[in-house]
Amino acid sequence: MRITTFTDFSLRTLIYLASLPPDQMSSVQQVSRVYNVSQNHMVKVVGKLKKLGYIHAQRGKGGGISIAQAPEDINIGRVIAQMENHMDGVDCNAPACQLAPCCELRKALMVGMQAFIAAMENYTLADIMTNKEQFSPLLFINQPEGLDQEMTGLEDNQNVATNKNLD
Amino acid sequence: MRITTFTDFSLRTLIYLASLPPDQMSSVQQVSRVYNVSQNHMVKVVGKLKKLGYIHAQRGKGGGISIAQAPEDINIGRVIAQMENHMDGVDCNAPACQLAPCCELRKALMVGMQAFIAAMENYTLADIMTNKEQFSPLLFINQPEGLDQEMTGLEDNQNVATNKNLD
Repeated sequence: MRITTFTDFSLRTLIYLASLPPDQMSSVQQVSRVYNVSQNHMVKVVGKLKKLGYIHAQRGKGGGISIAQAPEDINIGRVIAQMENHMDGVDCNAPACQLAPCCELRKALMVGMQAFIAAMENYTLADIMTNKEQFSPLLFINQPEGLDQEMTGLEDNQNVATNKNLD
Repeated sequence: MRITTFTDFSLRTLIYLASLPPDQMSSVQQVSRVYNVSQNHMVKVVGKLKKLGYIHAQRGKGGGISIAQAPEDINIGRVIAQMENHMDGVDCNAPACQLAPCCELRKALMVGMQAFIAAMENYTLADIMTNKEQFSPLLFINQPEGLDQEMTGLEDNQNVATNKNLD
């Protein structure tokens, strides 16, 4: 049992942005490159993080994305609960289970999922970045090659089209 | 975040077998048919449940599969922990994350997963079958069509080949 890659990439994005020097902006392209993740996928991640208020996104030349809250204020349990599509533990419809109307498994799994989220709510972004000083060289943070020609990464036609679903 | 279909089907199988009248055996074919699940997939599920001691499987004519423990003794948290391939919460290698050596997210997720399992350990198979009397008509338990010509479902060449990996 694992968090989805969507949630995983959202946490990686927050870690990356929180690792940047103050006031340094990044872009979807850069985060995608750092983690070797599809840019289309990352556009959706960043779109949702922006919508939820975790990141700022400034369009246009000189724009970019940046962390919008102090790492101490970003609760990991809450981020996971917001980013996961499903916190019901099981899909009784794939394939459809005829016991669904009377089975208590789903209710039990909901209790288990709540226990998971409650445990994760004990952590902030700062807590999972206690080794922050080791992150910068691993993330190539001081080598922003090509950043001057990048925008937020939410602007090209393909990305805007994809991102519309998130607004 | 959800349990895998492998774990889901294993719980469905235990529910089905525990719903049968005492001493009535079933087969992999029948469980597959009841839940509309691929028989090859179900052979693997049943193979692992047998290995873990949750079900009996008797080969040959007149054989079949049956529940091996009282529902009150089958702990749902333990079944989930045993059936899930991964209880680490995140795959730092897909795609490979360069922060893995120093990031604390994985450790935090392990704590969350332990909280999930601990919550699920409060449930037995009997607890999720409190409406057991409603199950039989939904599972067609009294219509064992073709059961007389069925074995455990672990015997044909294809299934034996698949099941070798589970022993």
